[in-house]
Amino acid sequence: MIGQMGTGTVGSGHGQIPHIGVGLLGYAFMGKAHSHAFKTMAYMMSPPPAIPRLVAICGRDEAAVRDAAARYGYETYYTDWRALVADDRVQLFDNGGPNHLHAEPCIAAAAAGKHVLCEKPLARTAAEAQRMLDAVTRAGVKHMVAFNYRFVPAIRQARDLIAAGALGEIRHFRARYLQDWLTDPTVPRTWRLEREAAGSGAIGDLGSHIVDLARFLIGEPRRVTATVRTFVGERPLPGATAPAPVEVDDAFAAVVEFAGGAVGTLEASRVAAGRRNHLALEINGTAGSISFDLERLNELEVYWTEEGRKETRGFRRVLVTDREHPFLSHWWPPGHILGWEHTFVHEIYHFLAAIVAGAPVGPNGATFEDGYRAALVCDAILESARTNHSVEVAS
Amino acid sequence: MIGQMGTGTVGSGHGQIPHIGVGLLGYAFMGKAHSHAFKTMAYMMSPPPAIPRLVAICGRDEAAVRDAAARYGYETYYTDWRALVADDRVQLFDNGGPNHLHAEPCIAAAAAGKHVLCEKPLARTAAEAQRMLDAVTRAGVKHMVAFNYRFVPAIRQARDLIAAGALGEIRHFRARYLQDWLTDPTVPRTWRLEREAAGSGAIGDLGSHIVDLARFLIGEPRRVTATVRTFVGERPLPGATAPAPVEVDDAFAAVVEFAGGAVGTLEASRVAAGRRNHLALEINGTAGSISFDLERLNELEVYWTEEGRKETRGFRRVLVTDREHPFLSHWWPPGHILGWEHTFVHEIYHFLAAIVAGAPVGPNGATFEDGYRAALVCDAILESARTNHSVEVAS
Amino acid sequence: MIGQMGTGTVGSGHGQIPHIGVGLLGYAFMGKAHSHAFKTMAYMMSPPPAIPRLVAICGRDEAAVRDAAARYGYETYYTDWRALVADDRVQLFDNGGPNHLHAEPCIAAAAAGKHVLCEKPLARTAAEAQRMLDAVTRAGVKHMVAFNYRFVPAIRQARDLIAAGALGEIRHFRARYLQDWLTDPTVPRTWRLEREAAGSGAIGDLGSHIVDLARFLIGEPRRVTATVRTFVGERPLPGATAPAPVEVDDAFAAVVEFAGGAVGTLEASRVAAGRRNHLALEINGTAGSISFDLERLNELEVYWTEEGRKETRGFRRVLVTDREHPFLSHWWPPGHILGWEHTFVHEIYHFLAAIVAGAPVGPNGATFEDGYRAALVCDAILESARTNHSVEVAS
Amino acid sequence: MIGQMGTGTVGSGHGQIPHIGVGLLGYAFMGKAHSHAFKTMAYMMSPPPAIPRLVAICGRDEAAVRDAAARYGYETYYTDWRALVADDRVQLFDNGGPNHLHAEPCIAAAAAGKHVLCEKPLARTAAEAQRMLDAVTRAGVKHMVAFNYRFVPAIRQARDLIAAGALGEIRHFRARYLQDWLTDPTVPRTWRLEREAAGSGAIGDLGSHIVDLARFLIGEPRRVTATVRTFVGERPLPGATAPAPVEVDDAFAAVVEFAGGAVGTLEASRVAAGRRNHLALEINGTAGSISFDLERLNELEVYWTEEGRKETRGFRRVLVTDREHPFLSHWWPPGHILGWEHTFVHEIYHFLAAIVAGAPVGPNGATFEDGYRAALVCDAILESARTNHSVEVAS
Repeated sequence: MIGQMGTGTVGSGHGQIPHIGVGLLGYAFMGKAHSHAFKTMAYMMSPPPAIPRLVAICGRDEAAVRDAAARYGYETYYTDWRALVADDRVQLFDNGGPNHLHAEPCIAAAAAGKHVLCEKPLARTAAEAQRMLDAVTRAGVKHMVAFNYRFVPAIRQARDLIAAGALGEIRHFRARYLQDWLTDPTVPRTWRLEREAAGSGAIGDLGSHIVDLARFLIGEPRRVTATVRTFVGERPLPGATAPAPVEVDDAFAAVVEFAGGAVGTLEASRVAAGRRNHLALEINGTAGSISFDLERLNELEVYWTEEGRKETRGFRRVLVTDREHPFLSHWWPPGHILGWEHTFVHEIYHFLAAIVAGAPVGPNGATFEDGYRAALVCDAILESARTNHSVEVAS
Repeated sequence: MIGQMGTGTVGSGHGQIPHIGVGLLGYAFMGKAHSHAFKTMAYMMSPPPAIPRLVAICGRDEAAVRDAAARYGYETYYTDWRALVADDRVQLFDNGGPNHLHAEPCIAAAAAGKHVLCEKPLARTAAEAQRMLDAVTRAGVKHMVAFNYRFVPAIRQARDLIAAGALGEIRHFRARYLQDWLTDPTVPRTWRLEREAAGSGAIGDLGSHIVDLARFLIGEPRRVTATVRTFVGERPLPGATAPAPVEVDDAFAAVVEFAGGAVGTLEASRVAAGRRNHLALEINGTAGSISFDLERLNELEVYWTEEGRKETRGFRRVLVTDREHPFLSHWWPPGHILGWEHTFVHEIYHFLAAIVAGAPVGPNGATFEDGYRAALVCDAILESARTNHSVEVAS
Repeated sequence: MIGQMGTGTVGSGHGQIPHIGVGLLGYAFMGKAHSHAFKTMAYMMSPPPAIPRLVAICGRDEAAVRDAAARYGYETYYTDWRALVADDRVQLFDNGGPNHLHAEPCIAAAAAGKHVLCEKPLARTAAEAQRMLDAVTRAGVKHMVAFNYRFVPAIRQARDLIAAGALGEIRHFRARYLQDWLTDPTVPRTWRLEREAAGSGAIGDLGSHIVDLARFLIGEPRRVTATVRTFVGERPLPGATAPAPVEVDDAFAAVVEFAGGAVGTLEASRVAAGRRNHLALEINGTAGSISFDLERLNELEVYWTEEGRKETRGFRRVLVTDREHPFLSHWWPPGHILGWEHTFVHEIYHFLAAIVAGAPVGPNGATFEDGYRAALVCDAILESARTNHSVEVAS
Repeated sequence: MIGQMGTGTVGSGHGQIPHIGVGLLGYAFMGKAHSHAFKTMAYMMSPPPAIPRLVAICGRDEAAVRDAAARYGYETYYTDWRALVADDRVQLFDNGGPNHLHAEPCIAAAAAGKHVLCEKPLARTAAEAQRMLDAVTRAGVKHMVAFNYRFVPAIRQARDLIAAGALGEIRHFRARYLQDWLTDPTVPRTWRLEREAAGSGAIGDLGSHIVDLARFLIGEPRRVTATVRTFVGERPLPGATAPAPVEVDDAFAAVVEFAGGAVGTLEASRVAAGRRNHLALEINGTAGSISFDLERLNELEVYWTEEGRKETRGFRRVLVTDREHPFLSHWWPPGHILGWEHTFVHEIYHFLAAIVAGAPVGPNGATFEDGYRAALVCDAILESARTNHSVEVAS
């Protein structure tokens, strides 16, 4: 008999692993990335801290959200986020909606006792972010901002090295996040180019990422001085005959001084021809340097001033895919590179673990306080550009 | 009422999409990669050609295979592949087992009318591969060898360019596949180092990949001349006091001549210090050249002899992540890189589409005939190394 | 007889080529580089516009300057620059001395009717540079600042492409010039770290280069906002028991806005561990982008938004060594790279040609006006750092 | 008085430094490169072992050779090499002529008691090379083959590391030397494509370089197996109406086994589109790996299996421009790259030092014995291609 030779139907296999009901707002780019992460985390991280139960997905276009629900396996769909937040099965509210839909739903979800994960930037302004931080703090729920690049293995390793003092005293941090999808002036005016919906342009969309990485890697910015620019003033509005104004920045450049003494630059643009998703950063310390490019996210360049033979010193290209590297024990043998989307898998893993264990989300994950602090820096960038004066970052 | 405002439970969402029962042999590296692909394909490719139903997984270690079944969501597990093949729910037999377990189970599965997907190398020798090819041909089932690098977007694009004549007449093909996990002589003697289990070493494991890519990209090798080497003659055997002999090659190097007139080199090693998974190839044609490195699998380097301004000619680094690039419309916006594991997602997608549509697996997928022809080249490499003479590849 | 078979003693070979008497101030790094250039230009550029006659070299240390004269073939040496300037045989005064010895000797040389080539930065302040500019203008002599990176073939090509409109409207310019020789706090306090002798630190030494390249490539900076930092406050003074204060900046970072509408960043440091001579710049325009790194000075990375096949767009690595590339017809076949020192050969070639032909030094060479304008930007950087306010560049 | 303040006319400055009379055959590419080296060495290497006296240059075209003499400063010119060899002032005969003019003039020069430097490949066949080796040995003169890539600082450093055992036991050597100037079939048939004049094509021109580097870096090749190909069978003959046959190889590919146990590949082509001067090599040892590309000749990539932190291992890009690196103390501060032509400066320096000191040319320089041994390998490559059999390299 087959069974006697080692056959069986499979039980849950995760007897003691809790299930956590997930409700997701948004089904587009971020909805897809988060859904992928919930599904993948459950079996690639072994064992997972919790099994995500995909309870419901929410979006305004009923046909689209129904399709998304079917595609990703959500049990229910909603076209009103209030219904999502009211769903008792939802324990974790994941906000992947546009920026102007971050605050109110997150605050409501927190008030309803749900843990909250919110896409970046946390809010359109620091004031708005602060209301969100107050809400989750008051509610005592777990909260996280989806600054997913903290979960790039190479970035985590960079942080670990810096935190351990391996780079010595940090002197420089420079980061640029360049994309080119707005280079062409015929690209239409979407919500990302409206101030009301987006808050800001390259600053919030790309700049918030590098501000968060700066804080994650080397600490608080103390002062910024910046310039902001919109190169294409109006763009075609789909379905309209007249073009519509672009209300947010295409690009910014800033000088930044850190509380710890380092100085550097932050820069982002969505009109940098040929740069698809070029988040590049470099950190120079007294004992070494680190360089990283998101387009090669499995690599970390590292220089040590003192290690080994003097005549063979140089930046080494570390392929961050060995078993010892952060998160890599969950994946493949050395040299088999991970994709961008797995940053979300690691992020979800981290957040669910914090929820289940009652452990803090920080410092490895970005909390709403981190989201708020990033927003303070973004606000300071805008204020500096407005006043032509350097601006102390509020603390 | 919420429902009236756009709420609903979700139906199958895939009314017309067929389900295909999958039975997988093997739960280790390849079992994990294939399981991931079946699960991911179902929602990332939209719509999928079929929904994989994970019927059963099979392996010798009952505890391990039961865990794997639970982890990946297989309904059943088996410890005997014969039981897997006998399971009527299985329509697609996926063989991710070690090389010596390719032939018999695949042949039995074909005889049972199941479509067959088999890991590479298809077999330990061309003769064994031929028996497998005969079996699937006789049975009239679909068959595919998991030469997953055909499904790297950059590789598919390279093939499309070459097939369209964009590179002109091909003059050179050179490929090397270098790893370093056997550099250390204390790495134990596993099945991969036994002739009976593995057939060959670097030749079958790594060489078969670059042989297949050579055939896929520029056509049939006509003649090879090769050298083979085992540097570490014996290795510790886990659980034994005496070391055991290494029976297969650590490395090979070959000169290859193609039916189409090109000449080049093929080389593979598992003792190339510092090279984790370095499959690098270059093709030179009369109208351009192409270069690729698996450690940067989202990039393709391309040179055109005649395109554009003379003074700015050079190899360009193409980030193969635009929507127009092969498979990319299923994924993320430009510049968001894919991981190695998604080659399997594309592969499964292709195979299921061929099954459902009754379409041929080739030329974009590797059939058992491709597996057989790759084995002929591997055999010729071994024979050439034995005889010190060049060897015509049988046809 | 041998002569009849084609033998002969060699005449000047340069019958009509004028000789120009050269007097050089400085025998260290720059003295060596300039001497090399005068000697090499005479036969590598064929025909040369003039034959440099190495009349005299001048420096304070008599033994050292005598050795230098013998080494490089100067007819005379001086330990007092006034004697050099007074030497009637000198037609071209080349100032390779430290910064505080730029103004007075150059002004005296101009007053004596000599053409003047001066190392960068032209002066310690814009006011000092203006006095120098006034002097050479008044004297009607040719004048050039040794911003030698204008004579890197890849840089000249970048300028030619931009000037021809190939990049469209320029939106971004970002440059960083990073070195690491001051990382170690035991490196001694030399004249380069004294305000009186050097004027400034990284700003004048490295920053002036990238300011000049910014002006050369895309036009005038209109406004800057900057931060300046000295990380190591005092250093050992050779021969003294007590350390001496470091009076100049180790690093600066600036945001820059250009008259033409572009925005970007400028940054320089001498404490960037691992960066030996990393002058990297990137320019993004509406039609393409350009990227350059001085450590790979024979390469230019170029991206075109519209050229050729859509699916193979990417930054191409152009090896700027083809015969069509700037200056390359004087050198070797394609692919044989040039060294850093040949930027000076091209520079000397350009300056002598301008002298002989009575042609303008600009726009391809940097005149004292360019040196003055670069100094205005450097001054604005320092003022902005002092005031925490953005500063309009004087014009 | 000026003189009292430190002025003086300059004496020879090189009182004890001997002068060596140089006679050069050839005024084209190699004539230019060697002339440059003789002139530059005299002052950049300080002190030089000897001052080259440029006695005479020789070539068949009287107008051209006269111009060359004037350009580079040779005292005399000849159109007959016999006259050059007969010139008593010539102590060092430098043969930069085409391959079929290597043997006879070198042999005559040796017989006349002159030291001999000869361009590579030493001869068209090993037999011819042996005659040359016998002649210089018999004459007791110093002899050197201009395998100038031994004098790339990065290559010398690689050798030093390997010789010191830093890489452990060597397992792989792979090198390719790719150019593309024959890609276009309308490129004319020059002497380089005639068997009588050139001996072979890519094999002697490019292959001899990588054969020499293989020998220099890891030791003697023991056995080769190769394929040779001519893709363009005839080419336009300047001044003729009919095309002329191409009599030599466009490309070759070989497997090579070394006496020390390593295996690898050698490959060269002059039809590799986009590769201007791509001499790339990689060496894998048990303790590390080294990689090099001539198009980036100031860089050496190095991997150590055991050095430093496990999590930051990777190939490091060493910029071989520090003062400690081979030859670099003669040049510029760190990060200022050297050009290709300075390999000849180092080579001349080495040869003159050996002459003056009576020291051996090897192992750092290539002697005629090295030229002969390289020719043996090239002959074996051709024989293997002819016989389809592996060929032992004669010893």
